[in-house]
Amino acid sequence: MTQPYMFEKPLGLRDLLPSAQRAIARLENIFQQELQRWGYDFLQTPALEYAETVGRASAIEDSQLFKFLDAEGHPVVLRPDMTTPIARIAASSLRKEPLPLRLAYTTALYRSQKKEGGHPSEFEQTGAELIGDATAYADVEIISLMIALLQKTGIDSIRLAIGHVGFVNAFFYDIVKDKKTVGQLRNLLYNKNDVGFREYVASLELPDESARKLNAFIDSRRLNNDETLDYLESLTSGSAIPVHSYYQNILELVDLLKTDHLEGKIDLDITLVPHLNYYTGFVFQGFGGGLGFPVASGGRYDDLLAQFDRPCPATGFGIRMDRLLSAARQSGIQTEPRKKAVIFDRANAGRALLFANQERNKGNAVVLQHADGIDDAAAFAEQFETIKRFLSSDRMETE
Amino acid sequence: MTQPYMFEKPLGLRDLLPSAQRAIARLENIFQQELQRWGYDFLQTPALEYAETVGRASAIEDSQLFKFLDAEGHPVVLRPDMTTPIARIAASSLRKEPLPLRLAYTTALYRSQKKEGGHPSEFEQTGAELIGDATAYADVEIISLMIALLQKTGIDSIRLAIGHVGFVNAFFYDIVKDKKTVGQLRNLLYNKNDVGFREYVASLELPDESARKLNAFIDSRRLNNDETLDYLESLTSGSAIPVHSYYQNILELVDLLKTDHLEGKIDLDITLVPHLNYYTGFVFQGFGGGLGFPVASGGRYDDLLAQFDRPCPATGFGIRMDRLLSAARQSGIQTEPRKKAVIFDRANAGRALLFANQERNKGNAVVLQHADGIDDAAAFAEQFETIKRFLSSDRMETE
Repeated sequence: MTQPYMFEKPLGLRDLLPSAQRAIARLENIFQQELQRWGYDFLQTPALEYAETVGRASAIEDSQLFKFLDAEGHPVVLRPDMTTPIARIAASSLRKEPLPLRLAYTTALYRSQKKEGGHPSEFEQTGAELIGDATAYADVEIISLMIALLQKTGIDSIRLAIGHVGFVNAFFYDIVKDKKTVGQLRNLLYNKNDVGFREYVASLELPDESARKLNAFIDSRRLNNDETLDYLESLTSGSAIPVHSYYQNILELVDLLKTDHLEGKIDLDITLVPHLNYYTGFVFQGFGGGLGFPVASGGRYDDLLAQFDRPCPATGFGIRMDRLLSAARQSGIQTEPRKKAVIFDRANAGRALLFANQERNKGNAVVLQHADGIDDAAAFAEQFETIKRFLSSDRMETE
Repeated sequence: MTQPYMFEKPLGLRDLLPSAQRAIARLENIFQQELQRWGYDFLQTPALEYAETVGRASAIEDSQLFKFLDAEGHPVVLRPDMTTPIARIAASSLRKEPLPLRLAYTTALYRSQKKEGGHPSEFEQTGAELIGDATAYADVEIISLMIALLQKTGIDSIRLAIGHVGFVNAFFYDIVKDKKTVGQLRNLLYNKNDVGFREYVASLELPDESARKLNAFIDSRRLNNDETLDYLESLTSGSAIPVHSYYQNILELVDLLKTDHLEGKIDLDITLVPHLNYYTGFVFQGFGGGLGFPVASGGRYDDLLAQFDRPCPATGFGIRMDRLLSAARQSGIQTEPRKKAVIFDRANAGRALLFANQERNKGNAVVLQHADGIDDAAAFAEQFETIKRFLSSDRMETE
């Protein structure tokens, strides 16, 4: 007895049927080609990593990890991100390679969902990591590469939000002088919980001027790029040295983005902070297709490699292929195939085969089908643009 | 403190570093293009499936499954094969699609290894399934498609061993009249345990003529194609009807392979039985690059779809990408990239960028690198075919 249960998939997991798979493959091919042209080398890592090493360094919440014991009794996780496995490789197999490293990947990531909320537990991601270059030029390369990839997809209205978590941390610390409090403020910022932020600031019993500065910070979200730069400059007066140097860093990036003719695509938003806590400098999110959530995100993570005993700066991004697919649909991008069919019988098998081979060599998609293998001829025929018949009864008829 | 353990991967799991990944990607691209030309549609399924449904139907030994409980407490497995998930989809999401279905995939499969023995726990496989066509034409299509894919890779000395597990089962059953005994004989055949086979036959206390027939069967491995066909014909005299009809089926296939000009690439071997027990008809293994183990395997599985409540015939194959990579190496196929580098400073950023973009638009791979981001200039330079410098001190020097 077959039960309906036979057809179910575990929570948050999906099949990609041919039309979706075609659309994803098209995007992956575009990305693969473009990343190679920018000199990025693709690699692949195992689906499973040890929970205590890569699992922990990935900074993904424990409740989101698919975690179990392997055959030897060691706790393992299904790869929850790709930046951490790449850090592991950069620090081991690629340790002798000269820096900077330019590495890329397209892979599935796994984040467990406790209840059905529309979030997938498994999703494809394409990304790039530029490891060993501390300059703002590396950040600009990563940002412009991400924009170039998104533009190649043909998706509408691509925008990039850019923040700087190093600046945010330094600015908060300069006022509250406590790392835990900084973390709490950053968390409220991440959740865009403005009311909670103001309440928390009030609870800190800071001097009036300090509280006013913190509350004004979340309001800066509404400023345009020039206003944001003016606002950031105003914050640096009387602030500690890190705040100044991060501000210079931001100015340099904006200047370089102008050289790249990208300033029209970016929205500076200093309140932007990511949910992954390994970022240390610039952070950014890419939007497109009119979707309300980012299709791509990334930033600088200068401390992660040190966890693998090869301290060095790094910056990178990942593009969520599932979200990009939604953006492509919003932008009306179609990827339906145009297939021909050849239907034949035994007497004409040789000729049918020859014809199919010729068409395939021209790059056309041709289904070669013996008439006896078709159940419902009308339904079968509907799938194809043209049908050519090599049959003894009605020779070489074309529809 | 970082421990060496930080760099380890769970048992049987490997990283694919850039050179291996390039080689695999080259093969995958060839396969993707060719499969599309033959009218096959790619799809993707989740890494996790329920253990009780797809896990059980996959017929992979329990000890080889990565099995654990998901967040809801259901036993799940990491996908051990792809034929079974495709059967699930053919019987559910694609239930309304007209037969035959032509489906393809490239995906990672997972088979747990209890000890380090050189076998990977995770490997890429590209495959095709032709579902809903019972004719020998479908088997010929699958066989010739597999050969076409292997030939496109440029790998040396491609050969195909073809058997028929339906014939083997029917022939054994005709003699021993007991399914368990048939299974035992088939298992000894699979393990190429000729001594064990003869001992087991002796233990059955069959009439002399029957024992002689069984023992002669394993010796048929040494026969050439014409001798094998003669031998099979001799077996049909006095045998039951299924043996006859499977013999006709084999004759038809050989005849069609001649039409396809493939008879020179195949080795009929009626003793060939696969380790997966869902096969019901033709079975085959593809060899290449002088390797002693198959790089591809497949066959007809007419009973699997019935487990998902859509009884229909099917045939297909899978190509192991890891083994194919070994075969490509044996065949001396190289895939090293040819990259240029552009090294620039701030004053020349605009010109360097313009040059890099022009080269990339021509399809060349160009690394654009600010001089300040390079640690060891000599080691960095060694990676590239040519280096162009846009620097204020030594303008536009090309190495």
